[in-house]
Amino acid sequence: MRISELARRSGVPVGTVKYYLREELLPAGEPTSATQAQYGEEHVARLGLIRALLGTGGLSISTARAVLAAVDDPELSAHDMIGAAHSALPTMVGNERPDLGAAHAHLRRWGWQVHHDSPAVSVLAQALQALQAAGFDTPNALLDRYARAAHELGEQDVAEVPMDSPVEAVRFVVIGTLLLEPVLLSLRRLAQEDVSARRLFRWPDA
Amino acid sequence: MRISELARRSGVPVGTVKYYLREELLPAGEPTSATQAQYGEEHVARLGLIRALLGTGGLSISTARAVLAAVDDPELSAHDMIGAAHSALPTMVGNERPDLGAAHAHLRRWGWQVHHDSPAVSVLAQALQALQAAGFDTPNALLDRYARAAHELGEQDVAEVPMDSPVEAVRFVVIGTLLLEPVLLSLRRLAQEDVSARRLFRWPDA
Repeated sequence: MRISELARRSGVPVGTVKYYLREELLPAGEPTSATQAQYGEEHVARLGLIRALLGTGGLSISTARAVLAAVDDPELSAHDMIGAAHSALPTMVGNERPDLGAAHAHLRRWGWQVHHDSPAVSVLAQALQALQAAGFDTPNALLDRYARAAHELGEQDVAEVPMDSPVEAVRFVVIGTLLLEPVLLSLRRLAQEDVSARRLFRWPDA
Repeated sequence: MRISELARRSGVPVGTVKYYLREELLPAGEPTSATQAQYGEEHVARLGLIRALLGTGGLSISTARAVLAAVDDPELSAHDMIGAAHSALPTMVGNERPDLGAAHAHLRRWGWQVHHDSPAVSVLAQALQALQAAGFDTPNALLDRYARAAHELGEQDVAEVPMDSPVEAVRFVVIGTLLLEPVLLSLRRLAQEDVSARRLFRWPDA
């Protein structure tokens, strides 16, 4: 297909497609003349992934380029390739460098296999520090419950990753990881409201 | 106790305590002279709640004042009082006004009792729209799984609210609702990483 058709199919304006070609996020097409080239289905899929990284993920061009380099590396296992995208995603995190000790102690307790410096470990560590600073108790039983719920979701999330192509797998992981986060948080708040409504939630002396 | 002792006990500077008194977030103490007053334990607890609302919650003074008015209203049920704080908390939400239809259809399917215009319904609706726009399928089975996990956490969250005083209950809800959110999201990402590592996650043709 010509670039105009590629743009139409992928919902990305022609000027933006040309920008991604110049930035080498999108591989060049097959030249058919000095100024024209043919593009294939792999370009449509690749544009879907680029949109997920830059749009949904909010990654910078250079971070997206590093993720795409992982996607293009035939030596990488799926775990490492997907991990490159997963760990590049933005998190609810400040810029502090928290003490990771307590977070890692919990992860060891659960036997979870994660990189020592996964961004999510920092998020967990910062959140635990903030809870402590606010005088909010987080006994193991509470965190175990959250870990169990998160692990059940994680099992299913990973089981659903389409493994037929690296490009589709990474696109799925970027979108699913990020866009299901507000779903999960809003459902937790709505569940809290539902439970509160059901219990009527009277004061003990009322 | 004197204002200096109140400041020390609550970890809030004297100038800030005076500001909260002027803004009528903190009730006046018992006057002991033209320029001095005595404060009690209820002032210490109240300052803890004010800090939770303004600091952790990031509420504006006027929103915090409205929440505190609910806390001071002896006619309100615990559900309504806590709900006033809960629904004032910031959410992961843009400024759009999404179509709430699909979100409410799911909530009805689950039989959840929530206000039609709870802020979390908007968050859910926006997230569902964003997933759809990204071409990410959200079949009922997927959302049901997230709803089930969220409801189990919500049950426990609500069960742990200390019901001995409205001030403590609302403070607990503000801190627990907000500060456990990054815990939940980071645990989901770490669980995904753990599951991916365990499955080794090879490409089918590798």
